[in-house]
Amino acid sequence: MKRVGVIGASGYTGLELMRIIFSHQKLEVSMLTARKYVTERVSKLYPSLTGFFDFDFKEYKSELIAESCDAVFLALPHGESMKVAKELLDYGIKIVDLSADFRFHDANEYEKFYGMKHVCPEIAESAVYGLTEIMRREIESASIIANPGCYPTASLVGLYPLAKNDLISGTVVIDAKSGVSGAGRKLSLDTHYPQVSDSICPYSVFFHRHQPEIERQLVSYSSGSAGDVVFVPHLTPMNRGILCTMYVPLKTAMRFDDVFSLYQQNYSNEKFIKLLERGVYPSTKNVQGTNNVHISFEVKNGGNELIVMSAVDNLMKGGAGQAVQNMNLMLGLKEEEGLMFPGLFP
Amino acid sequence: MKRVGVIGASGYTGLELMRIIFSHQKLEVSMLTARKYVTERVSKLYPSLTGFFDFDFKEYKSELIAESCDAVFLALPHGESMKVAKELLDYGIKIVDLSADFRFHDANEYEKFYGMKHVCPEIAESAVYGLTEIMRREIESASIIANPGCYPTASLVGLYPLAKNDLISGTVVIDAKSGVSGAGRKLSLDTHYPQVSDSICPYSVFFHRHQPEIERQLVSYSSGSAGDVVFVPHLTPMNRGILCTMYVPLKTAMRFDDVFSLYQQNYSNEKFIKLLERGVYPSTKNVQGTNNVHISFEVKNGGNELIVMSAVDNLMKGGAGQAVQNMNLMLGLKEEEGLMFPGLFP
Amino acid sequence: MKRVGVIGASGYTGLELMRIIFSHQKLEVSMLTARKYVTERVSKLYPSLTGFFDFDFKEYKSELIAESCDAVFLALPHGESMKVAKELLDYGIKIVDLSADFRFHDANEYEKFYGMKHVCPEIAESAVYGLTEIMRREIESASIIANPGCYPTASLVGLYPLAKNDLISGTVVIDAKSGVSGAGRKLSLDTHYPQVSDSICPYSVFFHRHQPEIERQLVSYSSGSAGDVVFVPHLTPMNRGILCTMYVPLKTAMRFDDVFSLYQQNYSNEKFIKLLERGVYPSTKNVQGTNNVHISFEVKNGGNELIVMSAVDNLMKGGAGQAVQNMNLMLGLKEEEGLMFPGLFP
Amino acid sequence: MKRVGVIGASGYTGLELMRIIFSHQKLEVSMLTARKYVTERVSKLYPSLTGFFDFDFKEYKSELIAESCDAVFLALPHGESMKVAKELLDYGIKIVDLSADFRFHDANEYEKFYGMKHVCPEIAESAVYGLTEIMRREIESASIIANPGCYPTASLVGLYPLAKNDLISGTVVIDAKSGVSGAGRKLSLDTHYPQVSDSICPYSVFFHRHQPEIERQLVSYSSGSAGDVVFVPHLTPMNRGILCTMYVPLKTAMRFDDVFSLYQQNYSNEKFIKLLERGVYPSTKNVQGTNNVHISFEVKNGGNELIVMSAVDNLMKGGAGQAVQNMNLMLGLKEEEGLMFPGLFP
Repeated sequence: MKRVGVIGASGYTGLELMRIIFSHQKLEVSMLTARKYVTERVSKLYPSLTGFFDFDFKEYKSELIAESCDAVFLALPHGESMKVAKELLDYGIKIVDLSADFRFHDANEYEKFYGMKHVCPEIAESAVYGLTEIMRREIESASIIANPGCYPTASLVGLYPLAKNDLISGTVVIDAKSGVSGAGRKLSLDTHYPQVSDSICPYSVFFHRHQPEIERQLVSYSSGSAGDVVFVPHLTPMNRGILCTMYVPLKTAMRFDDVFSLYQQNYSNEKFIKLLERGVYPSTKNVQGTNNVHISFEVKNGGNELIVMSAVDNLMKGGAGQAVQNMNLMLGLKEEEGLMFPGLFP
Repeated sequence: MKRVGVIGASGYTGLELMRIIFSHQKLEVSMLTARKYVTERVSKLYPSLTGFFDFDFKEYKSELIAESCDAVFLALPHGESMKVAKELLDYGIKIVDLSADFRFHDANEYEKFYGMKHVCPEIAESAVYGLTEIMRREIESASIIANPGCYPTASLVGLYPLAKNDLISGTVVIDAKSGVSGAGRKLSLDTHYPQVSDSICPYSVFFHRHQPEIERQLVSYSSGSAGDVVFVPHLTPMNRGILCTMYVPLKTAMRFDDVFSLYQQNYSNEKFIKLLERGVYPSTKNVQGTNNVHISFEVKNGGNELIVMSAVDNLMKGGAGQAVQNMNLMLGLKEEEGLMFPGLFP
Repeated sequence: MKRVGVIGASGYTGLELMRIIFSHQKLEVSMLTARKYVTERVSKLYPSLTGFFDFDFKEYKSELIAESCDAVFLALPHGESMKVAKELLDYGIKIVDLSADFRFHDANEYEKFYGMKHVCPEIAESAVYGLTEIMRREIESASIIANPGCYPTASLVGLYPLAKNDLISGTVVIDAKSGVSGAGRKLSLDTHYPQVSDSICPYSVFFHRHQPEIERQLVSYSSGSAGDVVFVPHLTPMNRGILCTMYVPLKTAMRFDDVFSLYQQNYSNEKFIKLLERGVYPSTKNVQGTNNVHISFEVKNGGNELIVMSAVDNLMKGGAGQAVQNMNLMLGLKEEEGLMFPGLFP
Repeated sequence: MKRVGVIGASGYTGLELMRIIFSHQKLEVSMLTARKYVTERVSKLYPSLTGFFDFDFKEYKSELIAESCDAVFLALPHGESMKVAKELLDYGIKIVDLSADFRFHDANEYEKFYGMKHVCPEIAESAVYGLTEIMRREIESASIIANPGCYPTASLVGLYPLAKNDLISGTVVIDAKSGVSGAGRKLSLDTHYPQVSDSICPYSVFFHRHQPEIERQLVSYSSGSAGDVVFVPHLTPMNRGILCTMYVPLKTAMRFDDVFSLYQQNYSNEKFIKLLERGVYPSTKNVQGTNNVHISFEVKNGGNELIVMSAVDNLMKGGAGQAVQNMNLMLGLKEEEGLMFPGLFP
């Protein structure tokens, strides 16, 4: 049994980590911290945990963490993870960081998109980008993982086979739809029920920080031949889920079967990536509560316009689920441990 | 007071027509037909009308309609409108048809996309496509209007200034999101609450019949320079509303202000088209229950990639509202009569 | 044309007042105030008003209001209305107050339930409780109206014929369900989309401040024979609407037809109260966006257990709609002016 | 590993059984039948199972079931279970029946409330009503379990400690709110998204068939001193969940602490029943996807009016979850096997 801590555990990602770990056979939570809720019981904040997880939140103290944890999940806001990563690594604690702090190898880019000085650029340089299916090898031997953003996960799993094989020609349009839990537990008018329910709207058009995250990865998969992305996220009246509808100009025309084969080659052994039959499209409810990615595509006869659709649960494969998947690998456990279950439908 | 009939009044579009006409100062309903509900009271089907609209549904009989109506709305299924249009026109009754039966001048195209023989191609040829802001002149003198589809309305209002001025280069991607009322009152698993609520999914990828409808219109606005469209609709967990996010490759780079001016030139006198300030994006809730179109756009600095976003209420500007707007014009009334009200928010 | 001001216009009730008045033939808005948004355009806060209501919010200044307004709606928080009522009345301005400040004739009761000192108890004593259908006469000659709470409106319209005729025996259970807009525009975790969507829960059990408001009114209708109420509100995952399911022990058994007749006697001339046919129950969507009250009831054969169900739109008949209804009466207009329209369905 | 069949597996309860059993360490599905979908793959009907549960639906044949199953869940419509129960029992197959067919010991009552002739009244007489926490002993040795209805489960767990101790005086009002999945997968206008979303309404007032089911059980717990129930269910715009707000007249006044102690005595060892702290009320989202029951109560100081609130997931503790709990007991497994997980929140 490996002992893990959740640092910054009061948000929805923290809650989701607790939920997963509760049913995980090889991990146990040994420490929970949340600055604003020190000494409060977890189940008071989240009554869904009543009788399952009656821990108290503690204050963050690195030496206590060192004593009690083999590894930690950092579920802190952007800018906070980088402040604690170094000391935890120095204690020999493995880290899966769910913030954006280590998602760009080049700290200058981080500083540009997130508007803050990076305090440990050398760690950013060596952190492994934790899109598990693509970076599995590197993750196994990493000491710190930058867990991908929710939108990048949904997008990149869908685009990887194309980028790696140099099939993309020009700009990919990613029209993304996210449930409101993606905005977290922090209050804002944009997530106030009467404003957002029963209504859909775009936001951060051209300026969402996940766009450069996606682009850097596409560049790396394709040695630079791909990477130009137009990304528009939409706030959608649902709790969980991300659907990406991606419009991909191909270098040459492909038939549906060719595309399907390509994806099968890449993903047929993957436990969490499901290629849907032709004509069945991803619905976010079908991946609700799971670590699964549902993918399908459609191609015009003889055309070079490909549409790739992918759905994930933003708090699972787009967050806590993938974090546990990565943690499993880092700790030498089976990758799928604690994560193999179908979606909650309806 | 003009007397109008609603033929096929039992669906959501019929209901919406009744709701509008109830508050309309110059129109009154003089006939309602609905095959399945003959002799039943309207308010029994729709208790929201209790005390306002206690008519009975009648059987369709052209001679009775001729006696009692100056004009009619046909809210019939595709394939049914064309069966009655001729006899009603012969009686001198003006028609706004909300089905697709007269949206293609070339009946062969209709037959191709809707899979049925057209029974009066000559009427299709002369019917006016009722996108009011664009076809106002022709509508005023028409005897039959083909009211546009909901998706085409939202899309075309957003693209018209660009198409007319020959600014579009290549394929426009239209990623469209519709509320469930767009699928009508007919039962199906896809619109069963537990299946569709709290979840988003694409459908009819590449094959939705509104795609050719949009394309034909774009061709006509641009004399053929525009018209290539990739259209993907999404079923969205909300009642009403269509949001179109449109990715438009421009022939030459434009600045935001240039685009804004262009739209102002076209639309500043329009009563139902609202250009939002930069940075404010359309939200379907903001047009709920109205005939308004909200439009905004975003352009990359110096780029030639333009994003146009438009929102309508699918049952109003995307259906019954625009139908009344067209009827007003046909009957010599003020275009905005009965339609000038802001949205129901929240 | 009467000129009215909306004081504290930035909340959902203020928005709803603007929406109604925009279509009202005899009222026009001549002043809008909102402390936090002075000089800001209304449509910036509420894009649904774009092109309809492009006023700026002003600061509250009584002399300016006196110059520009014949009457005002106070849409201020509890405790704020009483601070301005006196000076406005002294200017001869008529007031409809949507807060709770004047709902209790006895200021001591207000102080007990709202936990603040009342600054003008003499005005509270003379203010008329604006449940229009019941207090019509008094409203016509009033200078200040205490507009009822949303729950009391839905409850009292349903219970009035029983209370007035002394038919209630003992404690009435009111199980009430409200949409989230009832909690207003103020942010809280309870109205944060991911917390409240797709879930129902009770709140303020036994301690909601609308319970004594309901009780005082029942006492007054029945000369004290009725008035014992158990009231439990529930936060329901919808935007608008209140449904009250009321369990009424009758003094003697009544048949359905007797109950129906009783309600017809009281309400058959009412423009906004609709008695539904037996077996049709109120659905909040059927009154969406309207000033209507839908009522139905069910009685066990020969039993003395009566169930009364009533539905209103909390922002309309439960707020702004009834406020305009009262204002119409105070200003000598037709009571239903600007308010006669069926619901937005679906 | 015990082999179980799911007979009538195509509905939401069948799906939920598959979801649970997939993660269950001691049960495996060995047979799935669904008349309408014979030879079809389960994941085609429910893409959420893709890659997890790629079985085909089979035709129902008792001899094949006898060969392949140790026990079965009957997830058939009312009236169908009783047709197959006898032959399966004769094969020695244990049964958990999720229909109402065996919920009344007296077949005459079944016939009265369900309007059909009972074909095996002797089995009805001996079947055990599977409210696990109350009937644990009898369940362990039963060969056929009548799994309780969703509303009765939520209600009875909340009322049992009171009924057993003879504390209830007179009629209990149960105001119940259910998510739409409670109506199953069958299409109807009442569950059509545009009709039901964003709206709440009562149904089956005084005539719901779960009312006599609740009453019979209360009578049996209390030896007849309790059992008079007024039951009003409401269709609520959410997927899953039942909330019961129960208004209980007590024989004598009780303090909160006394009530709390009483419930603790009954439930403190229960794994699925969670008593919430005072002031925390059940929210259906907090039990989403789980077999848990959340209970709280509120009592007026010194009053004899008690309010009990309980929440369950209608498809879990109100259906498939409790069915597995019962199956575990019947098969000699640990009662909680495969069911111990906290809710999916948000």
